[in-house]
Amino acid sequence: MRTLVTICLLLVGCGPASNQPSGTDLTSATFIDMTHSVSLNAPFWSGEVTPFEYNALATHASGKVVMGQYAVPEHFGTHLDAPIHGGDNLPTVDQLTAEDLFGPAVVVDISSKAETDADYRLTREDLLEWEHDHGRIPDGAIVLLNTGWSLKWNDMDAYRNRADDGRMHFPGFGEESASFLANERSIRGIGIDNMSVDYGLSSGFEVHSIVNGSGKYHLENVANVHLLPATGAHLIVAPIKIEGGSGGQVRIWAVLP
Amino acid sequence: MRTLVTICLLLVGCGPASNQPSGTDLTSATFIDMTHSVSLNAPFWSGEVTPFEYNALATHASGKVVMGQYAVPEHFGTHLDAPIHGGDNLPTVDQLTAEDLFGPAVVVDISSKAETDADYRLTREDLLEWEHDHGRIPDGAIVLLNTGWSLKWNDMDAYRNRADDGRMHFPGFGEESASFLANERSIRGIGIDNMSVDYGLSSGFEVHSIVNGSGKYHLENVANVHLLPATGAHLIVAPIKIEGGSGGQVRIWAVLP
Repeated sequence: MRTLVTICLLLVGCGPASNQPSGTDLTSATFIDMTHSVSLNAPFWSGEVTPFEYNALATHASGKVVMGQYAVPEHFGTHLDAPIHGGDNLPTVDQLTAEDLFGPAVVVDISSKAETDADYRLTREDLLEWEHDHGRIPDGAIVLLNTGWSLKWNDMDAYRNRADDGRMHFPGFGEESASFLANERSIRGIGIDNMSVDYGLSSGFEVHSIVNGSGKYHLENVANVHLLPATGAHLIVAPIKIEGGSGGQVRIWAVLP
Repeated sequence: MRTLVTICLLLVGCGPASNQPSGTDLTSATFIDMTHSVSLNAPFWSGEVTPFEYNALATHASGKVVMGQYAVPEHFGTHLDAPIHGGDNLPTVDQLTAEDLFGPAVVVDISSKAETDADYRLTREDLLEWEHDHGRIPDGAIVLLNTGWSLKWNDMDAYRNRADDGRMHFPGFGEESASFLANERSIRGIGIDNMSVDYGLSSGFEVHSIVNGSGKYHLENVANVHLLPATGAHLIVAPIKIEGGSGGQVRIWAVLP
């Protein structure tokens, strides 16, 4: 019997009935919340005059809220850029389905490069090197950059990193790496743990045009990217469903075995 | 060899390594979006003077939005009531975790009763009858009512169903059924496909006090509840993460085998 069970387990380990932890079963998974709270203290883009407003409509004896209302730009905090954000007549946020939104995470770590060069942009070579180490970027991947910026979230000055001339310095995707992902791989979208998939010095927002323009989405201000493995996590990406919206606040969880 | 494989499959079929479709594996599941879009046409609570405002900040040549900002009450459209909505010093929406939010759906169909009596309230006996047919409500369940109201979403008059005296007529949970779920079963939360877990005529919002007050959440204006089986679906519940918020717009998917 022991032999049978051993052979059985060996067969199971290799066959279609494999029960290897896949990181995709909701009842046995570990979840990492990759969402910063929407709050008055969240770092915001320079042009956002009223980044987030919250008004209590009724309060408890403690002063805590019974119910409230709020106002916010779609592209504030941890949010999703729908394809239309980067190109006319492309899908709006409410048109993205679970099949578009849920997929395997690929995490590329440029945090050490960004630590010495805040203007660092991901290169095509960085991606080829990642593939050398971890295998080809799988179809349907959501490619996240770990720039180290998530850890600066509670320090708005460090997060925006504005110089005296007002220009911001934070890392991003480069044009060639964006084109590689949009055209030579079959991804769902890209994401980053700072304010923009284009680096802080960008004025043309080329990565937005390339990736949104190709019908893919962006995730910006993603939390806890540094906690994810290079491969093996599966993402649940859940944006607010604004009719005709160009994007919006998004709840993101990584699902781990 | 065939014998070994047969024994193996039998063992696998009964053992912990079972690969039965559970409806919880993200890579093999079917998803049903249970979220109505947030829009200017969404039915809203009578007191909400400015239910939803949307302003484009930039537009494409087509007139479609490049980016926008919006204002909305937390309890508008498909939304979640965090426990604090119904009781002081209870968890706010940002304090709910994936472990709180994801769980098996139990669907109780009162649509035929509600069709003949729009003021119908779910009874304790309805739940006992459901358990007779489908087994005990599992620990961690999210108990959804199918009242048939989801199909009225695009007809605000039918959805609110206000009489000449201004009072609304739509079904809900009753106090005894709410107490049964909150105290005699171990649920994550409850949900309904109309505007409130309390029926339209309610003035005291007893169900809110009972269920939110016991630390559980509500889902209101849930879409497509009528498409779910009585058991077997698993819910992904993804509310906007407003710091200290009493609730907020929520994205909900049912995950089916």
